[in-house]
Amino acid sequence: MTDRQKKQWITASDVAARAGVSRSAVSRAFSPSASIAPETRERVMSAARALGYQVNLIARDMITQRSSMIGVVTAGFENPFRARLLSDLMAALGHRGLTPLVTNAEDPRQIRQSLERLLSYRVAGLVMTSASPPLSVARQYLAHRIPVVMINRAANLPGADVVVSDNADGAGHAARLFAQAGARRLAFVGPRDTSYSAKSRADAFAEALRRREPGGPALVRIHDTSSDTYACGVEAAQRLLAGDARPDGVFCSSDLLALGVIDTARQRFGLRVPDDLRVIGFDDIPAAAYDVYRLTTLRQDTQALANAAIDMLSERIDAQDGMTDGKSRTRIVPVECVRRHSCE
Amino acid sequence: MTDRQKKQWITASDVAARAGVSRSAVSRAFSPSASIAPETRERVMSAARALGYQVNLIARDMITQRSSMIGVVTAGFENPFRARLLSDLMAALGHRGLTPLVTNAEDPRQIRQSLERLLSYRVAGLVMTSASPPLSVARQYLAHRIPVVMINRAANLPGADVVVSDNADGAGHAARLFAQAGARRLAFVGPRDTSYSAKSRADAFAEALRRREPGGPALVRIHDTSSDTYACGVEAAQRLLAGDARPDGVFCSSDLLALGVIDTARQRFGLRVPDDLRVIGFDDIPAAAYDVYRLTTLRQDTQALANAAIDMLSERIDAQDGMTDGKSRTRIVPVECVRRHSCE
Repeated sequence: MTDRQKKQWITASDVAARAGVSRSAVSRAFSPSASIAPETRERVMSAARALGYQVNLIARDMITQRSSMIGVVTAGFENPFRARLLSDLMAALGHRGLTPLVTNAEDPRQIRQSLERLLSYRVAGLVMTSASPPLSVARQYLAHRIPVVMINRAANLPGADVVVSDNADGAGHAARLFAQAGARRLAFVGPRDTSYSAKSRADAFAEALRRREPGGPALVRIHDTSSDTYACGVEAAQRLLAGDARPDGVFCSSDLLALGVIDTARQRFGLRVPDDLRVIGFDDIPAAAYDVYRLTTLRQDTQALANAAIDMLSERIDAQDGMTDGKSRTRIVPVECVRRHSCE
Repeated sequence: MTDRQKKQWITASDVAARAGVSRSAVSRAFSPSASIAPETRERVMSAARALGYQVNLIARDMITQRSSMIGVVTAGFENPFRARLLSDLMAALGHRGLTPLVTNAEDPRQIRQSLERLLSYRVAGLVMTSASPPLSVARQYLAHRIPVVMINRAANLPGADVVVSDNADGAGHAARLFAQAGARRLAFVGPRDTSYSAKSRADAFAEALRRREPGGPALVRIHDTSSDTYACGVEAAQRLLAGDARPDGVFCSSDLLALGVIDTARQRFGLRVPDDLRVIGFDDIPAAAYDVYRLTTLRQDTQALANAAIDMLSERIDAQDGMTDGKSRTRIVPVECVRRHSCE
């Protein structure tokens, strides 16, 4: 080791020497669960502060064969709902002393590298927050005995838990609000083919409308989109509103879709929202509250989703045995109906 | 080591045995810069694939005293411009075989933990993408001989490089477009006190207007905001548009501010944009292109910002000497003027 490197990394032995304690007392002082006299811990901490010592987490992970890193797979950052979920996941991990290693599944190169890379860092667990990557990725982690938790997607893999928003309740709210607002011919817009959330919202919406008394609104159109973006909402509205039998209410599987539908209804077709067309979204992104939209929507509780996911993952990581063997568990997180102006 | 742990982690020795080569040949095969016969490398890779071997990056980092992790400090994820920049930074790091460790500076607990945590992981460098945290954080990393690069903020710290968008050019474009559109009384809206970008855009805008021939538009109001959010734009517009001497053009230091100004001008004051009020933003977030806004703005090239930042950081990391000693360098990245409908 050169002098410069020595200067760069203060070791636990340096701290022990300065504090006048043993090397192992320094280790114990930095382990929250270890038994050590408060005076000794304070002496160690004071020496550590004076020297600018930092615990070497890499070395500790090596020695304990236990990583404090958790892989987090997200699909891009630009969807405001996913951005909020990622933010809450990072906070939930940080509060438990865990470090997120984030991978963007929208970048093909990153997702190719990520399995290898996250395994290389010996991540203790994996959080998958999006429809992509495929379930085969989860299986690969499980094969390496790394537990997995998935948010808003269906799966029944032993060792992999699932947290989902209450799509059925949300769709039921939407059906009720459309009926109360006097809508008769309803459409659903969303990426049913690629998104578990969109599919389960569509199914539950159809079911909720069937269960209502006769004479209420009916689901007359389902428009599958390729994604849940604003542009897909624009395209869906151009198709749905062009024909004769135009719907008078649209339930969108995301707020971004709903914004595209509203703008297109107004600008291209001269329709008034909600008078001519009622619109309900899902997520409650910041723009849903903008004056120009005032979108009625189902708010996903990203903090509860994040906390439930990290709780379940931590339980598996902490379990002495069978952490990737136990059967899949599912937690359902309530959604909140946020009534604004777009469906009245 | 228990049998289970053995099963979990295939070692380099397992690969060496299967490939019939030495342990060091396996190391060389996985080091892109090491000298090794192509046939040997292929034999090692084939054995590694067969066994499901992953390089232990933690161990390699320990042995080489060299981390492949880079700390990235962002301020939240919900601002779409920052989300795009973060996405491009992660791609730029991934393409160079570096792993981002992301910290959210908006979460007080995360930012308190982050210095200690990132030092604990022996990060090789730090990217700071936002106004917070304070410069003192950069100084602490530099004191640990970890080079720093900052995006869109001013600094002159030895060892810390800076990448900024060309705010002066952007503000000059804005001044010209307002003049061409016939605006006379201009306002600037942005968080000058807390954001380097907002301050430099305001200063350059004032300077560009002063330099124009007499009889053109003048800067009559500067409205300082606490942040660059939509809500701050709403509040700014409520102040600016309430008085008698209302401006007929507003230059906003972010697109989110501009959207708040436009919605408020229309909904609360019944003004037409651009006829009664011309608005120009900065960033080019997705919503700027929405039909309802069609916002004229200055597009920041997040990919060029990210690549320049990681290039400069990598140079410092790769330098044998003085990686945190050399004087601060600044790169300026061009912005693109995106003309839509809000200033005509």
